[in-house]
Amino acid sequence: MSDSGSEGRTLAELAKRRGFFFPSNGVYGGTAGFYTYGPEGAALKRHLEDAWRDRFTVREGNQEIEAPTVMPEAVFEASGHLDGFDDMLVECAECGESHRADHLIEDNTKIEDAEALPIAEVEELIREHELVCPSCGTALAGEPVEEFNLMFETTIGPGSGQQGYMRPETAQGIFVEFPQLAEYARNKLPFGVTQIGPAYRNEISPRKGVIRVREFTQAELEQFVDPERDEPDLSRVSDVEVTLYPIENQREEGTEYVSTTIGEAVEEGLIASEWVAYYLGIAQEWYERVGVDMDRFRFRQHLPGERAHYASDCWDAESELDGDWVEIAGFAYRGDYDLSKHAEHADEEFTVFEQYDEPIHTERATVDPDMSYLGPEFGGKAGEIADALATLAERDRAAFEEDVVTVEVEGESHEIPTGTTGFAVEEVTESGEHVTPHVVEPSFGVGRTLYTLVAHAYREDEVDGEERSYLSLAPEMAPTTVGVFPLMDRDGMGEHAREIAGDLRGTGLEVAYDDSGNIGRRYRRQDEVGTPFCVTVDYETEADGTVTLRDRDSTDQIRVPIAQLAALLTDLRDGSRSFESVRDGYEELSEPESNPAE
Amino acid sequence: MSDSGSEGRTLAELAKRRGFFFPSNGVYGGTAGFYTYGPEGAALKRHLEDAWRDRFTVREGNQEIEAPTVMPEAVFEASGHLDGFDDMLVECAECGESHRADHLIEDNTKIEDAEALPIAEVEELIREHELVCPSCGTALAGEPVEEFNLMFETTIGPGSGQQGYMRPETAQGIFVEFPQLAEYARNKLPFGVTQIGPAYRNEISPRKGVIRVREFTQAELEQFVDPERDEPDLSRVSDVEVTLYPIENQREEGTEYVSTTIGEAVEEGLIASEWVAYYLGIAQEWYERVGVDMDRFRFRQHLPGERAHYASDCWDAESELDGDWVEIAGFAYRGDYDLSKHAEHADEEFTVFEQYDEPIHTERATVDPDMSYLGPEFGGKAGEIADALATLAERDRAAFEEDVVTVEVEGESHEIPTGTTGFAVEEVTESGEHVTPHVVEPSFGVGRTLYTLVAHAYREDEVDGEERSYLSLAPEMAPTTVGVFPLMDRDGMGEHAREIAGDLRGTGLEVAYDDSGNIGRRYRRQDEVGTPFCVTVDYETEADGTVTLRDRDSTDQIRVPIAQLAALLTDLRDGSRSFESVRDGYEELSEPESNPAE
Repeated sequence: MSDSGSEGRTLAELAKRRGFFFPSNGVYGGTAGFYTYGPEGAALKRHLEDAWRDRFTVREGNQEIEAPTVMPEAVFEASGHLDGFDDMLVECAECGESHRADHLIEDNTKIEDAEALPIAEVEELIREHELVCPSCGTALAGEPVEEFNLMFETTIGPGSGQQGYMRPETAQGIFVEFPQLAEYARNKLPFGVTQIGPAYRNEISPRKGVIRVREFTQAELEQFVDPERDEPDLSRVSDVEVTLYPIENQREEGTEYVSTTIGEAVEEGLIASEWVAYYLGIAQEWYERVGVDMDRFRFRQHLPGERAHYASDCWDAESELDGDWVEIAGFAYRGDYDLSKHAEHADEEFTVFEQYDEPIHTERATVDPDMSYLGPEFGGKAGEIADALATLAERDRAAFEEDVVTVEVEGESHEIPTGTTGFAVEEVTESGEHVTPHVVEPSFGVGRTLYTLVAHAYREDEVDGEERSYLSLAPEMAPTTVGVFPLMDRDGMGEHAREIAGDLRGTGLEVAYDDSGNIGRRYRRQDEVGTPFCVTVDYETEADGTVTLRDRDSTDQIRVPIAQLAALLTDLRDGSRSFESVRDGYEELSEPESNPAE
Repeated sequence: MSDSGSEGRTLAELAKRRGFFFPSNGVYGGTAGFYTYGPEGAALKRHLEDAWRDRFTVREGNQEIEAPTVMPEAVFEASGHLDGFDDMLVECAECGESHRADHLIEDNTKIEDAEALPIAEVEELIREHELVCPSCGTALAGEPVEEFNLMFETTIGPGSGQQGYMRPETAQGIFVEFPQLAEYARNKLPFGVTQIGPAYRNEISPRKGVIRVREFTQAELEQFVDPERDEPDLSRVSDVEVTLYPIENQREEGTEYVSTTIGEAVEEGLIASEWVAYYLGIAQEWYERVGVDMDRFRFRQHLPGERAHYASDCWDAESELDGDWVEIAGFAYRGDYDLSKHAEHADEEFTVFEQYDEPIHTERATVDPDMSYLGPEFGGKAGEIADALATLAERDRAAFEEDVVTVEVEGESHEIPTGTTGFAVEEVTESGEHVTPHVVEPSFGVGRTLYTLVAHAYREDEVDGEERSYLSLAPEMAPTTVGVFPLMDRDGMGEHAREIAGDLRGTGLEVAYDDSGNIGRRYRRQDEVGTPFCVTVDYETEADGTVTLRDRDSTDQIRVPIAQLAALLTDLRDGSRSFESVRDGYEELSEPESNPAE
């Protein structure tokens, strides 16, 4: 895929050359599964995280926290990661290389989703298909397949210390602090808590470039809801169009997608949870905004074997990369699993006390039998008779209206004078109840989304007879919003351009100043890192106070008064105006790109 | 200090109650040295990081990257952390608790900086002062003091895998990628690379609350310079006033500070490195901007024992917290130590090729002796004579002007016909040279700076006869810029306030909407989290389209037309206008805080 297919190779080369991302520690031979974001990549990543925060934290009225990445063992005992967060490992006896057994099977047979198979079956399949070590070619039949826990281990403190782990997901940092976070939310459901930060999986054999790495960034939202009372505002997303790939359609081994709207999908029962549906709608709009190609995007429902036993409905957002579909986010209805598990292990309350709108007054019937009568009368059976009276009082209050009450103990009827039962009806007032919230979890992979943006924005075309490659990134996402150049660094054009660059920076725009090489090469450099606009100061600037503004995708140029530049560029970046819409208002240059110096 | 003094206790309580920060994993008994940032703290931290990025990355024209937090052993073999990143550990034989031996000495004797003492001396001091275990009171005399490496260890990959460590500083992620990063900077010095992210130190006994933690955030700048050619633009900071605490003044055991300017401090030689001076000036301005109390702030020079052997000049930024001085940033001139070490271990070039302004043409004298003459003539000495001729050619070109050249070998003179020496002078053109850049490193602790902001902003006063506590945070830093309230949630005021809140959010302001409890309590809540402004919709709003705007620090209120609100609040947040300066332009309410509902 991303590092094997041709798209992957092209992008890996571009990403390294231009400073998006590259394998870490190259000077020491590299460390599989670790990538460093260069200046362009780090900026793109920051913009992506900001856009996620804007949509999933701020606009949803949620709260963001930041928890440590190292956590103690108790957390993962409770969460289930200590026992269940495993991949299947097979080691080559010849060369000692470790491989993921399920991936070997998927890559070399027609079996999909081998991860869900039991170990014995995987060992049998390795034998049956005569699979060999991809590194040295030695047969793997007979080698044991073992569960390998994917958490990075460490020790907290000196000596034997305390066992710790690098968190495998940011979510646990939210769940363990739920009692405190509920207080910040004033104990009112529903509320949501988000976190963006590193997570770690000690992959057996990382591959696919930046797609399957050992350290990555997650953006997660834990939405806490009362399953009985809280409903999402579906009306906000009911008209959003989505491409769904439900279980049924996957089972027919086809790729028939369902093109529908969120509203219809809920009505027809395609999406079981309204909360999941709500977030699929929000996510669809967000992916479009940040620049995912919606023709290379789908929501795929988890097959029953894929999803955790406690999750009732799960969908993945998937993007198409080099011909493969890659999970870039997951949306799960997790029920009360997470909070109940921690409540159990921590022996602390993970509930919210919900007040009823009105206090509920109920009557409760109780007995308080006179044992000084029951004892002598019934001997060893007195206790059982007392219990039977209590049960009867709850079930059938009318039975105590007569002088004598009849109860059965071990198939035998006994008559008790009602006066000795201590029967009474008391009024009880309940003001609310303790609820263990359910969790709806949209969980995004930031690195994979970033890679998707680059892959889906990559274009090649021809300009003035020369091949050009560029990234058609959304202006809001682009690492740099505007490149500012002097046509040449002489006759005051350099000073003027530097001044404009400084002024634009002052208004919060991200600006690259460049005066080296011919102007055409400077355009190409900005094209390749996705800078949507370039401003050039030329000889006319001094005369009439205008500069050229060039559009990356069309390479069209217009002349714009310097005074209008900041406001125009801000609008273009924020999407409140498009280049097409402003072009007519300015003088269009008749021969774009035919700049004499290019 | 921060969790022992009264300031520390007050702030720890406030920080937890209001959602700034609190010890992590409380439900599992807590994990010493780990803190979680709640919603207010995470927002404050983000604003602080954004302000740092704005100043030290964007405005300085530097480039930010993001490298992994897990790194392989080879990196730390080269950096010296594997050998030298130790603290002194003493374990109590009775209770098994581990302690920092140097801290025990500092806390219980008059000795400062015990960290710099040799181990044997520390053991002797423990005996001499009869120090006991702080946990159980058992005497520690005779217990061995050991070096404990502070890096968190982990294993990368399955099986015995590869030894890895959690990075103890973000800097190494920049140094190891220097060859790649230099390419992004087009191999031109000086250039700077920054990184903001987690770093880890497995402290022996974390204490002092959020001040000494095991996982923390650093903001580091590695400025790569040519020590011969590059100079900072000192004129930009020469007038900046600073409070310095140089070595001399520390030695006299006084607290005499030097109040001077950056320009004077360089002129008088107080600060040795101009690059360090430049960044002290930039940092001084930045600390003021983000809200550090400059009466509780100083730059302290490292004593010779404190600084690394390769660092020629080091200063710490220190803030006063609960009566103690705490390091919140370090500024070091690190020479070529980092890049040379990696060049040595990685066997790769960590240099920049610097072109001379003009190519340098030099002449080089060489010999190419005729061995068919020297051999027969001098036998076993022929080789030594050839070497002597080469040396002589380099040293004294004129010696070859005669017919015969005289060289000495082992005290004996030999005469060689010049014609057999192959003497020649050739012209050499050098276009530049490979330079190993020097590193200037401003390194900031984000968590400690955040704690300083909260501590220095904490105020108590009295309003309308009631005690009030509030955080006088800089508007740019405050987690929330404006609280929006309806006076009461009825008669359309709730809808109107929600609409205003939504509109303000749309302009990029951070807004808290609150309609619960009486208006006075809502003000107090915002006061305690440092929200600088509150807007209240009341009965007048419907009539004249104005709202009250309340200033946190003065509690003064003015009436502002809704239409002007967004622009005014944006200016107040960005500091381009102050509340005092706008007050007169609006009608001031005669009885601030005397709102009937309060």
